[in-house]
Amino acid sequence: MSSSSAAPAAKPPMRDALVAAAFRLFSERGYEQTTVDDIVALAGVGRRSFFRYFPSKEDVVFPDHERCLADMTAFLAASGPEHEPVRRVCDAARLVLQMYAENPAFSVQRYRLTRKVPGLRAYELSVVRRYERALARYLRGRFAGLPDGTLRADVIAAAVVAAHNNGLRSWLRSDGQGDAGAAVDHALGCVQREFAHPRDAGPARPAARVTALTGEQAASPADDVLVLVTRRDAPLWRVVRELEAVLDRA
Amino acid sequence: MSSSSAAPAAKPPMRDALVAAAFRLFSERGYEQTTVDDIVALAGVGRRSFFRYFPSKEDVVFPDHERCLADMTAFLAASGPEHEPVRRVCDAARLVLQMYAENPAFSVQRYRLTRKVPGLRAYELSVVRRYERALARYLRGRFAGLPDGTLRADVIAAAVVAAHNNGLRSWLRSDGQGDAGAAVDHALGCVQREFAHPRDAGPARPAARVTALTGEQAASPADDVLVLVTRRDAPLWRVVRELEAVLDRA
Repeated sequence: MSSSSAAPAAKPPMRDALVAAAFRLFSERGYEQTTVDDIVALAGVGRRSFFRYFPSKEDVVFPDHERCLADMTAFLAASGPEHEPVRRVCDAARLVLQMYAENPAFSVQRYRLTRKVPGLRAYELSVVRRYERALARYLRGRFAGLPDGTLRADVIAAAVVAAHNNGLRSWLRSDGQGDAGAAVDHALGCVQREFAHPRDAGPARPAARVTALTGEQAASPADDVLVLVTRRDAPLWRVVRELEAVLDRA
Repeated sequence: MSSSSAAPAAKPPMRDALVAAAFRLFSERGYEQTTVDDIVALAGVGRRSFFRYFPSKEDVVFPDHERCLADMTAFLAASGPEHEPVRRVCDAARLVLQMYAENPAFSVQRYRLTRKVPGLRAYELSVVRRYERALARYLRGRFAGLPDGTLRADVIAAAVVAAHNNGLRSWLRSDGQGDAGAAVDHALGCVQREFAHPRDAGPARPAARVTALTGEQAASPADDVLVLVTRRDAPLWRVVRELEAVLDRA
């Protein structure tokens, strides 16, 4: 096959043409057997053009992650105190899903390729880790000063990424059939219910109820008493948050 | 320096000698500047001996992970229905901590090296992912047939790994001072309280001013309830400490 016969009629931007040429060759010859020279020959451009867009052959497999990471960082940086932090990181994770769902055929093709090539799996792991760190960094800021703030930030970031990937992978394994958004929403919803502040998470599962004895408060302010009723298995931080909300008289 | 002057007096097994020679050179010359030939020359063995123990130069940096992964897999495979699954994966994660804590000086040295060399960080990420998958695989088995079983398994495995690494890294950053076990136990304890099934979590330790309604416990173990009575003007930290004492079932 000549490179001219493969040239796309619609003349997409050069970057897209390089990605298309690369994936065509990966599927025909295999990833390891395809060189950057093969890719530029098929795309009809020079080597320098390739490296202007992609630092390495691996990067052409994941052409949108850098943009997506930048979008996620900007999204989190634009957060305010009005955003419930766990919900916010779940919404940030949805940006990744959106990138995959924009082009289902490409995403499925890449998923199959990545599973076959250990080097690409390693690359993907490092990308996933960068998303996780971006989420954790934001949460550490929001939880600063709270007991076990960094621990909670790290655990929630990892849980959000695991849930997102669980939903994403089930969609990819179904060859991009079905509703990617619904699968990921369901998975993230579970994490949100587990970790988010009950006041912001809706009525799903209140983990702790805090009851103020208003009668005693009125009668004897000096001995103002709180009675807190909680499930014994409720996470401590969640109980503490409820206590904070009630004890905070400001 | 000649290789003979560096030969250890106690004549440790060849594998250990290779690791010692490698780390000596990594710290003197840098990781990238050290070749396998340099390592075998210093250790006084042939190249074939190196590759008998280590597939690559990267593997000599992490000489114990394969054994630890095998130990973890065996530990999880030896589990029975009597083991509460979340506690079990926390205990499995402690095997990794144990490996690090066995040799603090080596672990700290490697931590510093890994932070400087991107290729080693990528290697470590893939190792961590293998631990996470081993935990998730076990949990998927235990949660089979439960609603969202695989999702829950993936999320808990990720949370356990994140908590373990949070505790481990704070110990490594302190140059291996302090109690590694305590840091990791605390972190894993938080995850366990978050996810473990209350019926399997064992009896509580009642503390002053916190009363467990034993009647309700007996009637409905799944909804084990705590009632905490406190003055409204009590400092939050004191209330939290009381709560911690009661909620901590370790």
